Order: sequence, then C-alpha cells, then structure tokens
Amino acid sequence: MRRFAAAGWLCAAGMLFVALLPTPHAEGQPKPIPNPGDPLPHWNDTAPKKAIIAFVEKVTKEGSPDFVPVPERVAVFDNDGTLWCEQPIYVQFAFAFDRVKATADKHPEWKEKQPFKAVLEGDHKTLAESGEKGLVEILLATHTGMTIDEFEETVTKWIRTAQHPRFKRLYTECVYEPMLEVLRYLRAKGFKTFIVSGGTTDFMRPWVERVYGIPPEQVVGTTFKTKYVVKDGKSSVVIEPAVDMIDDKAGKPVGIAKFIGRRPIMAFGNSDGDFEMLEYTTTSKGARFGLYVHHTDAEREYAYDRKSHVGKLDKGLDEAAKRGWIVASMKADWKSVFPAKKSPK
Amino acid sequence: MRRFAAAGWLCAAGMLFVALLPTPHAEGQPKPIPNPGDPLPHWNDTAPKKAIIAFVEKVTKEGSPDFVPVPERVAVFDNDGTLWCEQPIYVQFAFAFDRVKATADKHPEWKEKQPFKAVLEGDHKTLAESGEKGLVEILLATHTGMTIDEFEETVTKWIRTAQHPRFKRLYTECVYEPMLEVLRYLRAKGFKTFIVSGGTTDFMRPWVERVYGIPPEQVVGTTFKTKYVVKDGKSSVVIEPAVDMIDDKAGKPVGIAKFIGRRPIMAFGNSDGDFEMLEYTTTSKGARFGLYVHHTDAEREYAYDRKSHVGKLDKGLDEAAKRGWIVASMKADWKSVFPAKKSPK
Repeated sequence: MRRFAAAGWLCAAGMLFVALLPTPHAEGQPKPIPNPGDPLPHWNDTAPKKAIIAFVEKVTKEGSPDFVPVPERVAVFDNDGTLWCEQPIYVQFAFAFDRVKATADKHPEWKEKQPFKAVLEGDHKTLAESGEKGLVEILLATHTGMTIDEFEETVTKWIRTAQHPRFKRLYTECVYEPMLEVLRYLRAKGFKTFIVSGGTTDFMRPWVERVYGIPPEQVVGTTFKTKYVVKDGKSSVVIEPAVDMIDDKAGKPVGIAKFIGRRPIMAFGNSDGDFEMLEYTTTSKGARFGLYVHHTDAEREYAYDRKSHVGKLDKGLDEAAKRGWIVASMKADWKSVFPAKKSPK
Repeated sequence: MRRFAAAGWLCAAGMLFVALLPTPHAEGQPKPIPNPGDPLPHWNDTAPKKAIIAFVEKVTKEGSPDFVPVPERVAVFDNDGTLWCEQPIYVQFAFAFDRVKATADKHPEWKEKQPFKAVLEGDHKTLAESGEKGLVEILLATHTGMTIDEFEETVTKWIRTAQHPRFKRLYTECVYEPMLEVLRYLRAKGFKTFIVSGGTTDFMRPWVERVYGIPPEQVVGTTFKTKYVVKDGKSSVVIEPAVDMIDDKAGKPVGIAKFIGRRPIMAFGNSDGDFEMLEYTTTSKGARFGLYVHHTDAEREYAYDRKSHVGKLDKGLDEAAKRGWIVASMKADWKSVFPAKKSPK
C-alpha cells in the first residue's frame, strides 16, 4: 500500500479536534445589492474583483493579443478552503468519523482498537495523537472495500443532512457565494471549470454537480486503487484499500496533466497545498491568472494562514506578490461569505 | 516498473509486420446521399442504424420511461478499430518506430541493441520475435523521459504528415465516417462523448479534438507515471519510464470509474479488449446500449475477427447476441468507411 506520507492534506491530524466544539455565531451577511451588469456582485469593488474581470475580458475578447480560444479556457479550483469551508476540520474527515460511528456495529473490534475506539468515545486527545497513521486507517476503513456505487450512495445520503458544527447549516451551504459567482461567470465566458482537490474524487463527485455546477468528470482528486468485479451478471468497480494518487502539492500538476491534459490558464487556491497548481498554471506562455483566497474573517468564517494545521498558507503568502498572484481577503474583498439562502437541492 | 503484462493491446507483436507492405487498393466509397433529416447518412438503413437511432430517441425524449437527463448521457468509444483504422499495426506503434528512426542519432547504442536494431534495419522477423517485451522497451524509449509538452509537440508534428501504408492518406483521414456521424449525432442530442482506449492518453490528446471533436479531458487511455519539475522558473510535467495504468480489458471500467466517474449508457468497441467496457455499460439499471464494429470489409478496409492478432473479436462475437449488443458489419451496414474528403486541419 502506498502511504499518504506526501499528503500535506493530512497534516492536520494534530489539531483535528481543537475547534470541534460548536461556537454560536451570527453569520452577519449583508444582503447582496442587485446589479444586473455586475458578474461578481458578492465581491467588493476592490483589486481582486477588478483583476478577475480584467483577466477574463482580455482572454475572451476576439482580436485581443491575449485572446484564448474557448477549448483552452481551463480554470482549476481547489475545493477545501477555496470553494467551501475547511474549518474546523476537513468535511471529509467529519464524514469519515460519522461513518466509523455508523458502522461500528459491524466492527465490534473497534471498541478496543485505536484509533477507532477514540472516534467512538469522542476521545479527541487520543485521536489527535494517532496522527497521520491513524487518519489513514480511518480513511481506508470508511472509504474502501465497497463498490463505487455503494460509496456514492452513502456520501449522497450523508451530505444531504450533515451540518457544520459552528454554522448549523448543511456543509453544502457552507460554500463561498463569491466563489460560486466566479464559477458561473467563467462558465458563462466559455471556461470549463475543474476541481483539483486533495480530497478524494469519490467523496466529491456525488454532490459537486448540484452544488457547484461541476460534473463528476471535471473533478480531479486523490484516488484509491480500484478493480472491476462481475458477480451474478452485475458489474461494479470496487474501491480497494490502497491509495492510487495523492492530489496535493506537486500531485496537483500531475493530476491536472493526467486528468485534464491541458495546462489551465486560471487557478484558484487557498493554501500551500495549492502552490504547485498555481505555479504550474502561471509559469507558461500567454496570459495566466492565479488567486489565493486568504482566510482573514474570524467573524464571518475563520482567520488562519501561516500557522494553521488546516489550510496552511505560508510560502504562498510570501511568493504571491512576486509571482503576480492575487490574494483575496475574505474580510476585505467579499461582500458575503456563505449564500444567504439554502443551496439548490 | 509495472509491466504491460495484462495488455491484450500489445499482443499483436507476433504479427506486427505481416501486413506492413502497402497493398494498392481502390477505396470504392459510394457517394453519400444527402438527406437532411437523416442523422446517420453514411449508415445503410439496416438494423444497427435503426437500433442507434431508436435508442437515442427513447433516452432523449422527455416523458419517456427511458428518459436520461443530459448530464448522464455519457457515451464511450474505443479508438483503435472503432474510430480509426488499426491495421496493419496500431498507429501508435507506427509512431514509435518512426521515433526510433528519428532519434537514432542520439542513441548510437541502438545500432547494436535489440529491438531497436531491428527497427532501424527494418528487420521485421527479429522485431516480431522480440515480442511484448521488445515493444514495451520501444514504447518506453519513445514515449517517456520528456515533458508532456514536448511529447505533445512531437505527436502533433508527426500526425500531420504520417500516412497509412496501404491507403496512402493521413492516419487521421483513416477515420470512420459513419462513426464520426455517431459522435456528432450523440453530441447534438446532449451526450458527452469520451474515448476509452488502450492507446496512451498522451498520444491521443494532441489531435482528437481536431479530428473527432473530443477534447483532451474526455480521453481515457493508458498512462505513464509522471512527475512535476520546476527548472529556471519554468514548470513542466515529465513522463517517467513506468506504466501507471493500462486502459484495456478490465482496465477500461476502472479507467471509466476513475476519469469519468459516471457509468456510461452507450459503449462502442470492436474487440475483446472492449468487452468489459460494453459489459460495464450494459449491466446496470436503465436503458443501455452496446455496439461492436465488426471488421468484415477486406475491400474497403480489412476483414478480421476471431483469429486476428490486432483487434481480436472472439468472445465478443459469441456474447453479443445474448447480451443484446449490436454487431455492425462494416461491409453490410456502412455506406462508406473513410471520409471522401480530407479531415479538417
């Protein structure tokens, strides 16, 4: 089994539960001001919004020296922390812990076996101490050993009811309204929008079309090995307990080259795990665009960067200016964070 | 390095050069009869054409019990022998042999080293004897060790001039006009069309958009491992000399699940290498469609099936009837084989 050793995506183990206790908090979202000519009404009229629009206009204007034909308009988006909230823990981990609890009756041995015992008992200290190794065990136990269709059904059911501990709304309602606007704006301008995430493809594909308008085949993520099985005239693809590819850090350009086969011209991320994706996107000929979402808003969402165990943004903050990447401050540049209304079912 | 051991796609080694000598031959394509209401004018009005149209109509008709929403209209196509000619050898092998010749000056050792010596000397017997092991060596030597961008440029240049030995036209003009019609017809009906081929993605992506209208991100194929490299401020993805995934036989459903993430409702193939793809497509709930192109036309193309070393169709022929798969005879069911005019540049 290939280990998750390279996955910064998993480095959050130590801090997993620190912020798990729900914090009552007003969402405080100002009402959007309707402006039919404005493609990004939930962005303040500050530099990031202007930069996005200026870039899109120059690459989509026929005759412009920076014109990019429609098929080459590829934009990639990290998911956790870029399109939806990744605090206090990655949503996929919340799913994994819920799955441990939901399937514990089929695994009586978990009552005495770490790290499962810690999950079942809510023993955050022991769970945190189990570190990356423990997390990998939990992921393999909850994400593999079933068919893709079965896993999809499980995720679909869970995501329709699971709520964020602090915001008391569905996780799929803890998506960033300004980023949903960017997705829609780019697609209206002929872009294809892709997710390129450290999360696993199987966890994202069941709901991203409904929530982001991104179809399953435009999701690049961490994958497990699979095998084809035929039984009683029925065919299925079974997820095996072994990692196939980790789509994080240098794995993101690798995933882009493998799944998309075309270098993006726009990339959106929020952490050092996205650094190589932004670098790969912006270090090539022609007009290129990179943007970091900077989590600066403890009131409406969370404030974290250089020292965070989830979504650490350190090197990226240092390098953004010299590389011409935009840093969008959630607090200063976004009119709202989450959609005021529930996302479409 | 993972070996190509499972690749039926490579089993043609023994017969590789048997049919390499050009055979002068009339193409004998009847002129298409224009009929604006006919989505498949290059198909005869026989059972396969009727089956394709009947299926597409029932799944796209609102209110039909078999209606399939647009996002789920996924159709998969094998490439070699299904969309373009795979005889006398897979086009990708012709490319590989040309690359050995073109880069021989950088590899003086090849003059004395098999199987490269055999390629350089046109020694078909020795090359054939080198078998699968020899072919893998040639593939790795010609398809890896460079950036994806460099490889793309090489393929793009080659494919614009390389000609089929018998038909004396570009390989990209040895595509099947009736199948191009199916691609266009399905897309007009809201389908997404994907290639799922034993050939490598890197070899197909540079030209399939121009020739088939299928973008790079809708190409699933055999892949090599890659790594991300940054040098002098430039970033690239380098192809490494190791196989990542073989997209053939049971590898096709695995590739579909991994890259597309949705079970297709239509599958088109021509060989036993496509069997599992058709099986995976058709053994699930709802309306499903599988079709084999049967190479029965020695005059206009080639006639081969059960005993062929390239594109062997044996088990598939036996199973098609009981599984409800259509077998389209090139000779009986196609008005023409190749497009009368050159494909668009």
